[in-house]
Amino acid sequence: MLKTYSIKEIPYYHIYGRTDEMQNPLPLFWNGSGIEVNVTGSELWIDLDIDCSFHEPWIATELNGAFMSRQMLLPGSYSICLFRNMTLGVPKTMKFFRELQAMSEDNDCHVFVRGFQCDGEFLPVKEHKYKIEFVGDSITSGEGTYGAISDTDWLTMYMSSSENYATFTAKALDADYRIISQGGWGVYCGWDNDVRHNIPSYYEKICGLGFGKANEAAGAQKDYHFASWKPDAIVVNLGTNDASAFNQPPFTIPETGETFKQHKNPDGNFMEKDRERFENAVYDFLKMIRKNNPEAHIVWVYGMLGYDLTLPITNAMNRYQKDTGDHNTAFLNLPNTTADTVGAHMHPGVKSHERAARALIEYLQEILL
Amino acid sequence: MLKTYSIKEIPYYHIYGRTDEMQNPLPLFWNGSGIEVNVTGSELWIDLDIDCSFHEPWIATELNGAFMSRQMLLPGSYSICLFRNMTLGVPKTMKFFRELQAMSEDNDCHVFVRGFQCDGEFLPVKEHKYKIEFVGDSITSGEGTYGAISDTDWLTMYMSSSENYATFTAKALDADYRIISQGGWGVYCGWDNDVRHNIPSYYEKICGLGFGKANEAAGAQKDYHFASWKPDAIVVNLGTNDASAFNQPPFTIPETGETFKQHKNPDGNFMEKDRERFENAVYDFLKMIRKNNPEAHIVWVYGMLGYDLTLPITNAMNRYQKDTGDHNTAFLNLPNTTADTVGAHMHPGVKSHERAARALIEYLQEILL
Amino acid sequence: MLKTYSIKEIPYYHIYGRTDEMQNPLPLFWNGSGIEVNVTGSELWIDLDIDCSFHEPWIATELNGAFMSRQMLLPGSYSICLFRNMTLGVPKTMKFFRELQAMSEDNDCHVFVRGFQCDGEFLPVKEHKYKIEFVGDSITSGEGTYGAISDTDWLTMYMSSSENYATFTAKALDADYRIISQGGWGVYCGWDNDVRHNIPSYYEKICGLGFGKANEAAGAQKDYHFASWKPDAIVVNLGTNDASAFNQPPFTIPETGETFKQHKNPDGNFMEKDRERFENAVYDFLKMIRKNNPEAHIVWVYGMLGYDLTLPITNAMNRYQKDTGDHNTAFLNLPNTTADTVGAHMHPGVKSHERAARALIEYLQEILL
Amino acid sequence: MLKTYSIKEIPYYHIYGRTDEMQNPLPLFWNGSGIEVNVTGSELWIDLDIDCSFHEPWIATELNGAFMSRQMLLPGSYSICLFRNMTLGVPKTMKFFRELQAMSEDNDCHVFVRGFQCDGEFLPVKEHKYKIEFVGDSITSGEGTYGAISDTDWLTMYMSSSENYATFTAKALDADYRIISQGGWGVYCGWDNDVRHNIPSYYEKICGLGFGKANEAAGAQKDYHFASWKPDAIVVNLGTNDASAFNQPPFTIPETGETFKQHKNPDGNFMEKDRERFENAVYDFLKMIRKNNPEAHIVWVYGMLGYDLTLPITNAMNRYQKDTGDHNTAFLNLPNTTADTVGAHMHPGVKSHERAARALIEYLQEILL
Repeated sequence: MLKTYSIKEIPYYHIYGRTDEMQNPLPLFWNGSGIEVNVTGSELWIDLDIDCSFHEPWIATELNGAFMSRQMLLPGSYSICLFRNMTLGVPKTMKFFRELQAMSEDNDCHVFVRGFQCDGEFLPVKEHKYKIEFVGDSITSGEGTYGAISDTDWLTMYMSSSENYATFTAKALDADYRIISQGGWGVYCGWDNDVRHNIPSYYEKICGLGFGKANEAAGAQKDYHFASWKPDAIVVNLGTNDASAFNQPPFTIPETGETFKQHKNPDGNFMEKDRERFENAVYDFLKMIRKNNPEAHIVWVYGMLGYDLTLPITNAMNRYQKDTGDHNTAFLNLPNTTADTVGAHMHPGVKSHERAARALIEYLQEILL
Repeated sequence: MLKTYSIKEIPYYHIYGRTDEMQNPLPLFWNGSGIEVNVTGSELWIDLDIDCSFHEPWIATELNGAFMSRQMLLPGSYSICLFRNMTLGVPKTMKFFRELQAMSEDNDCHVFVRGFQCDGEFLPVKEHKYKIEFVGDSITSGEGTYGAISDTDWLTMYMSSSENYATFTAKALDADYRIISQGGWGVYCGWDNDVRHNIPSYYEKICGLGFGKANEAAGAQKDYHFASWKPDAIVVNLGTNDASAFNQPPFTIPETGETFKQHKNPDGNFMEKDRERFENAVYDFLKMIRKNNPEAHIVWVYGMLGYDLTLPITNAMNRYQKDTGDHNTAFLNLPNTTADTVGAHMHPGVKSHERAARALIEYLQEILL
Repeated sequence: MLKTYSIKEIPYYHIYGRTDEMQNPLPLFWNGSGIEVNVTGSELWIDLDIDCSFHEPWIATELNGAFMSRQMLLPGSYSICLFRNMTLGVPKTMKFFRELQAMSEDNDCHVFVRGFQCDGEFLPVKEHKYKIEFVGDSITSGEGTYGAISDTDWLTMYMSSSENYATFTAKALDADYRIISQGGWGVYCGWDNDVRHNIPSYYEKICGLGFGKANEAAGAQKDYHFASWKPDAIVVNLGTNDASAFNQPPFTIPETGETFKQHKNPDGNFMEKDRERFENAVYDFLKMIRKNNPEAHIVWVYGMLGYDLTLPITNAMNRYQKDTGDHNTAFLNLPNTTADTVGAHMHPGVKSHERAARALIEYLQEILL
Repeated sequence: MLKTYSIKEIPYYHIYGRTDEMQNPLPLFWNGSGIEVNVTGSELWIDLDIDCSFHEPWIATELNGAFMSRQMLLPGSYSICLFRNMTLGVPKTMKFFRELQAMSEDNDCHVFVRGFQCDGEFLPVKEHKYKIEFVGDSITSGEGTYGAISDTDWLTMYMSSSENYATFTAKALDADYRIISQGGWGVYCGWDNDVRHNIPSYYEKICGLGFGKANEAAGAQKDYHFASWKPDAIVVNLGTNDASAFNQPPFTIPETGETFKQHKNPDGNFMEKDRERFENAVYDFLKMIRKNNPEAHIVWVYGMLGYDLTLPITNAMNRYQKDTGDHNTAFLNLPNTTADTVGAHMHPGVKSHERAARALIEYLQEILL
């Protein structure tokens, strides 16, 4: 018979993704955020609180490590059956995880887990060998990994963590992982020159991009406790939107009237001052990451949507290394997306994510030895 | 604003899979059965009647030809949102389809479509270039295409039409397609010598494997109207369970006490009489298929789970050709499943289905020219 | 210092391919025929007697199992340096092998090995785990595995054993192997209805296709001593030219005036009597192979250039099995060649050979266990 | 009937690789250097002058764009038959090219083409769409693309231009190409800290690495006439040996007694002064390349044997860009070689070259548009 467990009554579970682990219900803030249990029951349900005003969350499940389901979640408090009629007594690992990035444009959007219903016991969950943090933009939010190549709407269903280089990499290396990413954002500014849309400003919160009453009440804006989860490696995949900003019109912040624009010279090269502004953001972000993660190997990866900022990024990294003597940092190009590997919305498709993951896995395998 | 349409009120739609198209609600009997619409709305819901006693149905959706969602459906009358917030006015193709085979072991199991809710218009649905019918067993039911390699429960979630050589083939050739398949069944008998579990006995009904009151009321046991949908090619993928029967203990039909067993000689070869029984079933099934499909190219494919019956199948086909002069029939080995390509439950995995599809696509491309 | 060894003075070597091993010099009659030595010397030369009137032989070398060189050999008695300046004392395996099929159309064509020159010792050569015999036509002669897709001359340089499904299969299974093949030939007749061009008539000689004084003197026309090399498996890849004959004009043997032609009926199917003629040839060849190889598994593979004769071949095999009770025989389709995998002269390219080899390797792995 | 043509009597041919085109015979100095003709003859021979003291040259041929032969050339003046018995009158493209790098350690080593013998006419040779120059070390010399993984001798047979990312790239882009490369050399110093082994010192000669009387007489040490062949792109693949030098003992130049060593700090990082020395060499080489090739796109590629110097290379490139304003320069990581893709002598194998080529082709395709 099914018995209902609040999240706090479950003896063993593993949480993926940054969250406030003290919360009940448990918020899943980021794509790739999830909860994994190992149960002997024949049947398992998950109890959820879901909301959104426009951008509905999508989730997916993995049974014993294999993709099983993927669906839209509409607002409400309800339960979803994760499996049924399995052999009672045999342990099964079920992972329920968020496909959708933290949705900074929808304050109501959230996925909270109240608990589970099961007719068996909860067993300890297998631990991972490594810990990796991924910091990125739409690429790391998996935008375009679902959907037809011709699809161009900007909608939540096209994003995923299930078909995502970050997940592929973590799986191949047997790593627990956490994703901090936001489509359209950069390290200095967003694709449209909106300087508020930089990841570093939000990096030190649990989920600085989780706005709105419900997310705040669930701890999104609390300081992230870096010591609680020390990554072996941090993969930063930022710069793609910063590059775009050089080709976009100026952006005016409505509240202040301030206008921002990254410029190119008439010859098509980046204007020196604006390039420096970007490089300083890279430099400062490296410092921020290191301050909070003294032992992690930091690799800045770049190229899945063009190589334009390879040299500026490395320039900042070189200056950072010189100033700090911190050589536990590296740069790596990931292969660009081509007509053969593109997905929906002009973003990397599954094949591009697989190819990028291969290069990154090979790189990290040597580092993590 | 969403407007509700019963299935009969929709001006344009395409039905995949054998069904009684006059029914309202519309039954989706087989795996691969589905309904496709082309709408201008920003939002689309499907209204369903679902039931089962044990084996819950699973369904999946494709938006503009790309896989989007896959989920379990529990009993009840309810609606599912297929998409929302898309650009109003732009045509979108949405296909909702059944992952689970016709479930002969669960009389209550059914997926009925009552209609749709949409805020836009229904446009004509793109037609396919060819029509292909697939007749098979668990391989064609996609068993093992989802799930971990270690998973061995016999459950509905492991079956699919979304990752299935039949679907891959139909897509590559731009073909409308219909699947008639049942896990464990054969052309003469099932994997366990149960002679009732032969596909030919049910081939001439709309869905002879759809038992129970609800399925019958929905037309499952009606004669299938072959003239209504004339396939260019029929792919028969049967024999795998007939081969297994030679290695299994005898089967006794409880109702009659009759016992059946396909025997091997002490040297490991098929006993002549039993082999003939199998060959006669192949022979008779070819006659039945041809009677109902005078113009279709019939190709018997075999090998995805072992090549044991290659020669008996071809022997029956040769006799059939000699007796009838019907040379619009052919045999083709599909590549066996290996450790590299196996899926859950010791069945072909996605890689095996992809490889088989490649051989079949190449074959049919020449035939359908 | 280099020392010259006649073939008879070498303590250890391995011969690939059927030959008269007592001969000195040693004839390499077939494609894939070769000699392998394991030497400690820093330098190794091979001493050759080569001739041809039109079709010059091509050979290739493998050092420690890796392809190293490939070249044309023109008539003469001369030596070729196989390697030089390697580390003295370290064992190296060098295989020198014939790329060109036995050349039935050039009586002078031959590759005879007189011996080696080396500055080190000859060590025992590693033995293989299995033995496999391959019997075939131009496919097994590797025609088209070298050359541009547009090349259509019928020339020796386009044939190979280095890029050949037979070699790929033997290597993957660690098998010693022997090839008996001839481009344009069949099991009943050649591509052009020349009934003299059937492999079975020559199967029982060492190299029945090696005509001319030199080849005969080297033992080509001697009876092959089947007991001296007992294959675990025999792969027959014949039928492709027999299929072609049905589409070609009649052939008249100039010496006798007899005319031969395999016919199709007006409906495009094989005329019964002609089909039987072919089937009888398959049947008789199976008997001949079995008589000479009582324990070998015989697999007839077919399909790399079309599936036309799948059913006639299997019909003969079924009749053979029924009449003889010999079930250690099997049929297997190999994947057809497509625009993606074609090579020169409309023949299977390297990709087609690789794909065929994969299917055959997987098949034989289970048989040879 | 064969007619002999000295190189100067041939009306049309295409030369690959830097050389002194006025020479007769024509020297082929570099790997990838070759001569291509388009002839109507049925037979074609090439007349050669070959020499070496230790490191014998290897060459290969391509007929109509397809690899046909590969062989060792021993010292002497002789002719090689490139093809025979082809259809007279039909144009054939034959490319004869050098597999072996310019051999700085063997002053006698050379491949000189005296001319051809042919029974047909010479037609104009098809022109390429682009021109690309490749500058590199053992990777670009194709070391390890032939040979078994276990082979570790440093010998000429293991090097190639036939299986080489530079050739793959040039072919895919329809580019004429020239290779300047030397195994073990770097941009500042060789793998063993020998500072004489830097490519820039020799870059401005036709073949600065071609020492000895014969090579000098053939023009090797002449200034290269950059204006005669203006590349669209220059690919520099240097740094791998410079990285190695940091891990090797000091090197003393015997003639002068001067000792050189690139150092690491105790923490494993590059010592600042030594790193700067390397960076200055990159910086200066970029200036030298640009001076000689005002319009070429210069891309520095790096990573096929480790990513250690990614940041120092980019640091020099950034400084170069800042100082010169030359933004027609870029950096690109190529994928590292792994256990799956390694070749002989711990060098990139064919699979690694294919993978690197894919990334480079995709990159250049966008640049060359």
